[in-house]
Amino acid sequence: MVPRYARPAMTAIWEPEARFRIWFEIEAHATEKLGKLGVVPKSGAKALWDWWATNPTIDVAAIDAIEAVTKHDVIAFLDWIAQQVGPEARFMHQGMTSSDVLDTTLAVQLARAADLLLADLDDLLAAIKRRALEHKFTPTIGRSHGIHAEPTTFGKKLAEAYAEFARCKVRLQHARAEIATCAISGAVGTFANIDPSVEEYVAEQLGLAVEPVSTQVIPRDRHAMFFATLGVIASSIERLAVEVRHLQRTEVLEAEEYFSPGQKGSSAMPHKRNPVLTENLTGLARMVRSAVTPALENVALWHERDISHSSVERFIGPDATITLDFALARLTSVVDKLVVYPERMEKNLNKMGGLVHSQRVLLALTQAGLERDTAYRLVQRNAMKVWESDGQLSLLELLKADPEVAAALTAQQIEEKFNLDYHFKAIDTIFARVFGE
Amino acid sequence: MVPRYARPAMTAIWEPEARFRIWFEIEAHATEKLGKLGVVPKSGAKALWDWWATNPTIDVAAIDAIEAVTKHDVIAFLDWIAQQVGPEARFMHQGMTSSDVLDTTLAVQLARAADLLLADLDDLLAAIKRRALEHKFTPTIGRSHGIHAEPTTFGKKLAEAYAEFARCKVRLQHARAEIATCAISGAVGTFANIDPSVEEYVAEQLGLAVEPVSTQVIPRDRHAMFFATLGVIASSIERLAVEVRHLQRTEVLEAEEYFSPGQKGSSAMPHKRNPVLTENLTGLARMVRSAVTPALENVALWHERDISHSSVERFIGPDATITLDFALARLTSVVDKLVVYPERMEKNLNKMGGLVHSQRVLLALTQAGLERDTAYRLVQRNAMKVWESDGQLSLLELLKADPEVAAALTAQQIEEKFNLDYHFKAIDTIFARVFGE
Amino acid sequence: MVPRYARPAMTAIWEPEARFRIWFEIEAHATEKLGKLGVVPKSGAKALWDWWATNPTIDVAAIDAIEAVTKHDVIAFLDWIAQQVGPEARFMHQGMTSSDVLDTTLAVQLARAADLLLADLDDLLAAIKRRALEHKFTPTIGRSHGIHAEPTTFGKKLAEAYAEFARCKVRLQHARAEIATCAISGAVGTFANIDPSVEEYVAEQLGLAVEPVSTQVIPRDRHAMFFATLGVIASSIERLAVEVRHLQRTEVLEAEEYFSPGQKGSSAMPHKRNPVLTENLTGLARMVRSAVTPALENVALWHERDISHSSVERFIGPDATITLDFALARLTSVVDKLVVYPERMEKNLNKMGGLVHSQRVLLALTQAGLERDTAYRLVQRNAMKVWESDGQLSLLELLKADPEVAAALTAQQIEEKFNLDYHFKAIDTIFARVFGE
Amino acid sequence: MVPRYARPAMTAIWEPEARFRIWFEIEAHATEKLGKLGVVPKSGAKALWDWWATNPTIDVAAIDAIEAVTKHDVIAFLDWIAQQVGPEARFMHQGMTSSDVLDTTLAVQLARAADLLLADLDDLLAAIKRRALEHKFTPTIGRSHGIHAEPTTFGKKLAEAYAEFARCKVRLQHARAEIATCAISGAVGTFANIDPSVEEYVAEQLGLAVEPVSTQVIPRDRHAMFFATLGVIASSIERLAVEVRHLQRTEVLEAEEYFSPGQKGSSAMPHKRNPVLTENLTGLARMVRSAVTPALENVALWHERDISHSSVERFIGPDATITLDFALARLTSVVDKLVVYPERMEKNLNKMGGLVHSQRVLLALTQAGLERDTAYRLVQRNAMKVWESDGQLSLLELLKADPEVAAALTAQQIEEKFNLDYHFKAIDTIFARVFGE
Repeated sequence: MVPRYARPAMTAIWEPEARFRIWFEIEAHATEKLGKLGVVPKSGAKALWDWWATNPTIDVAAIDAIEAVTKHDVIAFLDWIAQQVGPEARFMHQGMTSSDVLDTTLAVQLARAADLLLADLDDLLAAIKRRALEHKFTPTIGRSHGIHAEPTTFGKKLAEAYAEFARCKVRLQHARAEIATCAISGAVGTFANIDPSVEEYVAEQLGLAVEPVSTQVIPRDRHAMFFATLGVIASSIERLAVEVRHLQRTEVLEAEEYFSPGQKGSSAMPHKRNPVLTENLTGLARMVRSAVTPALENVALWHERDISHSSVERFIGPDATITLDFALARLTSVVDKLVVYPERMEKNLNKMGGLVHSQRVLLALTQAGLERDTAYRLVQRNAMKVWESDGQLSLLELLKADPEVAAALTAQQIEEKFNLDYHFKAIDTIFARVFGE
Repeated sequence: MVPRYARPAMTAIWEPEARFRIWFEIEAHATEKLGKLGVVPKSGAKALWDWWATNPTIDVAAIDAIEAVTKHDVIAFLDWIAQQVGPEARFMHQGMTSSDVLDTTLAVQLARAADLLLADLDDLLAAIKRRALEHKFTPTIGRSHGIHAEPTTFGKKLAEAYAEFARCKVRLQHARAEIATCAISGAVGTFANIDPSVEEYVAEQLGLAVEPVSTQVIPRDRHAMFFATLGVIASSIERLAVEVRHLQRTEVLEAEEYFSPGQKGSSAMPHKRNPVLTENLTGLARMVRSAVTPALENVALWHERDISHSSVERFIGPDATITLDFALARLTSVVDKLVVYPERMEKNLNKMGGLVHSQRVLLALTQAGLERDTAYRLVQRNAMKVWESDGQLSLLELLKADPEVAAALTAQQIEEKFNLDYHFKAIDTIFARVFGE
Repeated sequence: MVPRYARPAMTAIWEPEARFRIWFEIEAHATEKLGKLGVVPKSGAKALWDWWATNPTIDVAAIDAIEAVTKHDVIAFLDWIAQQVGPEARFMHQGMTSSDVLDTTLAVQLARAADLLLADLDDLLAAIKRRALEHKFTPTIGRSHGIHAEPTTFGKKLAEAYAEFARCKVRLQHARAEIATCAISGAVGTFANIDPSVEEYVAEQLGLAVEPVSTQVIPRDRHAMFFATLGVIASSIERLAVEVRHLQRTEVLEAEEYFSPGQKGSSAMPHKRNPVLTENLTGLARMVRSAVTPALENVALWHERDISHSSVERFIGPDATITLDFALARLTSVVDKLVVYPERMEKNLNKMGGLVHSQRVLLALTQAGLERDTAYRLVQRNAMKVWESDGQLSLLELLKADPEVAAALTAQQIEEKFNLDYHFKAIDTIFARVFGE
Repeated sequence: MVPRYARPAMTAIWEPEARFRIWFEIEAHATEKLGKLGVVPKSGAKALWDWWATNPTIDVAAIDAIEAVTKHDVIAFLDWIAQQVGPEARFMHQGMTSSDVLDTTLAVQLARAADLLLADLDDLLAAIKRRALEHKFTPTIGRSHGIHAEPTTFGKKLAEAYAEFARCKVRLQHARAEIATCAISGAVGTFANIDPSVEEYVAEQLGLAVEPVSTQVIPRDRHAMFFATLGVIASSIERLAVEVRHLQRTEVLEAEEYFSPGQKGSSAMPHKRNPVLTENLTGLARMVRSAVTPALENVALWHERDISHSSVERFIGPDATITLDFALARLTSVVDKLVVYPERMEKNLNKMGGLVHSQRVLLALTQAGLERDTAYRLVQRNAMKVWESDGQLSLLELLKADPEVAAALTAQQIEEKFNLDYHFKAIDTIFARVFGE
């Protein structure tokens, strides 16, 4: 975790105290159910919850000090709880194994992290939608291969991003459902020493699903799917970030990250306004993605489990969720405050001398009865002249003056092909598909 | 694609002829709809379908020869079709762009590939289920960290695999739904030159969903999610493969890949029966996973599209699906024919002198009123003696002879803790959860 | 391997016949040395070499047919050789294991592949150098963050690429040296059944180093390093490819991939000249890089070896080397034929109204005695006006008219700061460093 | 960075204060050279060094506070220095750009990190060598595919690890040489505002090489190579860790991680001694490797630079080096204290009834004149009987009793083939190759 790329709510999920609080709740709920089952006295759970009701501070340092001796985190925690609660605490953890606590806790943490990320996505979607509606009919050039293609609108570009992040939200909902399971099944997942109903009870209390079959640990394909999903979301962040970076290029400058009045750009070049936020997002996307491969490598634990996944998750659990949370929020801010230059978009759109309309002329010629190849050749020879003039010549004028073209289409017919509105007639349809309204 | 890791049905999806057939269908359906809309004469689609009804051979070499000149695959294809069908073919591809054809084709291919993979998963699940039921109560030692832990059954191990691949199936269904979209939206996705109803019509004919908003290309986050899902499935394959490899180790030998009578193991050591299929699966899993990162890197195309994704997909489209199909089939065969040695499982289970029952004794001592720490110490001191004897001493006998233990538990009580059936009482519950019966 | 991204010389290395030829040479050299040591009759090697001298065709299909029965490739090969050579062939492979042949063969193949790649790099370096010298003093704007920064020359940009690929060459030389080792050490690398001098002899004959200690297989950290190095080279290819893609953007258009007269750009937009080669290289770079992770995962084979690496190497051995060979050759062609537009570079350079000279003015003001912060503020306020005018205002004129600036610098002093040559005075030094001349 | 996987010396390299100290030294050395060149007064450097000689505390919080306003770290630093040193500080940073400082600092940090890692490797090599010599002739079974193959020695296994980490050391030396360069070349690397001799001077003072050509930043292929190398080293760590994990399996138990007397293994199973250190190393290896892909993705910065690499390096710079340092130290400790059980190795070696000697018998039969295929069949049929007896039958006895074998070899000849020392006769040669003595 790099503090500058972290926000407090997500970071809090991963702090030791938060973890210990979940541990306690799992243990206390389990003890309560064990009490109901008559396995341990009901006084065990009561003592735990009574102490909990005092809203006690979790002394992380004290627990760590015990762990330094026992070299076992859960035992250290249980010892510390026993010190606080007294002898009734001995009924905790009956028939459970450390992983029951650790893995269910991780499930709670990842589910909470997913909830924050889902809220982040909602914020991002709202920002994108607002800007998309604002620029629904702001004309801009569509580019393929970085080359001017045909007109589109800036709102449509944002509608694409909206649809993409809406997909990301569904994916994350699936991933959250996968990861939010509770396993309290004992040493090798046989429930030998604990009744399956304890697992069911704790799952219900914590809002988790029951893990149908576990092996001391919750199977890591769930986590792999979770982190793979985060990697896909990160890639979508990268895509929108790269779009902004392109738009802010000196020669393009159709949009710009908001630049606060007091902000210095570069120590050397005071005129520069660099797209540093979206460049940063590009890098952060790489980092979130970097969690995918170790998460996939974590799946093949040996037999009922080994502990190789644990160190990996100590890194990627916090890092991937904290970084993605930060990145989504930063992207939301970028979109929200993006300075858009419609006049510059128009200027760029027109700079190719009308070449972007060549496709329409090509179609018109074909529909006027020319062979496709002939039509192509006619358009191409005029288009090449415009291209070589660096936008000084006008395709419209050249076509009107081309006798072979003029033989097929009237001047008015040709002029109609250069009307921008022609390209926007399906924007309403697209917006209805994307925004459902 | 490596031929030895490929099966015909999946390979066929990726052959040029199959691709060209899909291209034709897209073009012909689109031309048909354009005819209904009155954009082109209805004779266009009729000519195409009439020719198609003759069940023509697609001359891949001829199309390639044209592409060698035009350096453009779709134009080459259209030219060749025009040669076959005649002048009516000029109504094909009106208002469309190459990517409309290419991306929708890839969607069809990946959807078909997903269908084969889903069938593979069904086969695998059936094989696992059969063996799981067969060995539902075959006792075996559960191992954590590669060390004997507590008894479990071999059927439960397989139930774990079943649950994992059942999750994989749901994931793949999601991924298939994501990838199976149709985009026919023109040069930058504005439908400027083609009515959105053409897209809707072709989508319906091909069994695809409509891509709500596209940008010449179908957005690559869909493909990223698809290949990420394949990567997760591959990791689950690796897990089961590694389990078999462990079980086949000389010292363990609880199960073995089927070894056909005529098969030579090693040129040098004729006695060896190596788990070469599951080792191979381990490697193949790495290869399927290796598609994930390039697929994620493909998402951030520039503006409305660049073509950097294309070469990546020419590799990973076939390679990841063909390899995963092969791997799933191989794993199914391994599971189906796996030679299981229950007597060896029992022998291994007993080799630790009863140490695997120590957890039960620990619990019994606690329930008998001892402090957790005291109980732990009592069990540990006897367990260590057994451990150091390399299984020659019996934990049961030592415990009965330990005065502190004997003060808390009767001999009969201790003996009860060494009963294997105790561990299997929840197996029915687990199987009901997993197999739903 | 995707045929369209493959060149014959590299592909040939990976064809079955090439592999069998290396197998034969290893076996024959080893048999020869065994003859010299008196372990087998000298007639064994003689029979082999006599047959070889007839320049026999390797019947790949026949060998494959035997393998289909034996399920063991080396045994199949030995059987086929025995059929050709007769009973003397039984002295082949004495004391050797299959991996001795397979791994040493892979070493030969990778070393040969490295040789082709090194030659590719030489070609690329030569092309870059030629164009760098051609454009040593062609002014162009340097850009950081995609934003105009300060002037540089197009030749310097190419000098950067030269230095980078020169480093790649050294890295590949290291990687080649690592990979080119010979192991003939028997079943677990103990030389139990074969004298170490056989390994030394074969190594010498094949131009390989001796593997100091092997374990039936050559350790896979060597291969991991090899493929990691290819991944770094691929990333450098991506960097130069992305540079060209940026330069070819419609709004920038400072350079263009060569566009042959007959070539069609897009089926829909005939005016488009897309940077499809460099976009393709961007994708191919992703593919070469995708070999790195599986190669790293291949290192941790179990004990003396397992065979999980084998399937991985059947893919990445050919794919990564063939693709990188193709990519290097394609990049060389792109550089060689790149159409450079110096006049457009100059036009872009001037379009910001002189903002790119602001850094020099800032320095001059500081040197004239102003506080850094004051100087920064003065430059910034004028620069912002130019920026907001979209290059219509001139920074030079604004600065001369700013009384606070004028109080510190004369008009002539300010004008001097706008002289382009100022920026190029170290170009000779840089070229001397890079090209050593 | 996860504190539990971090050691102080490596962590210190990455702390803010260490970074600021390097920044100061770069600025001060540069100012000194600028003074010698007459660009600025010599009093500038003097003031800086005089202040530095007071051994001042770097007030990280104060610098951070300034950055919170300026949003620019280097400007914040320069402002703070100016507050400490007074007006003479204005001669700092003349003609430099932030990246000159940042990138050269990263080079210093990575070079220092490499030095620590090289020392770690030396420690590891020393530990491995000591144990290798200790167990040079400790017999153990060599395993391929997890199956018993032929005898080897435990010392030879360690010699393999030694050779592998010796290669890692050379690789890291190469990577260190690559990364340790100094760039002080101004806004786009043209030295427009600063003489190249400043770069040369600072490089010399800091023990770095001169970056021949830079682009505001040091090219990221160097960093990619650096992190790729760390990834390879991590994979070698994984290999040795996996070996230990295999050896510690309950059924194998030929070696064990040291288990301190007071240590609790599992909360549930007190008898368990789990290979938790090497399992942890397996996971840490995945994490170090996870830095490779983002480092490769960082190479293709746009034009003269963008800042997408920066966030990536804030993670992987510390994380990969700190984790690898920790992992190497942990592995050294594991090797150093590894509890080796030669008697158990011998027991395992003998448990297959002599099957491991079958290769020798096969050879002897061939040398006695039998066809390879016949010999193979003879050995195989007896070997299979032993195999199926689970080691109860003796291959030696069966062979002596097999009339066809007896027809080719005398009993004494067969017995000779079962002599263990036969396998160790080249151990001296191997050790001489690996340890050079």
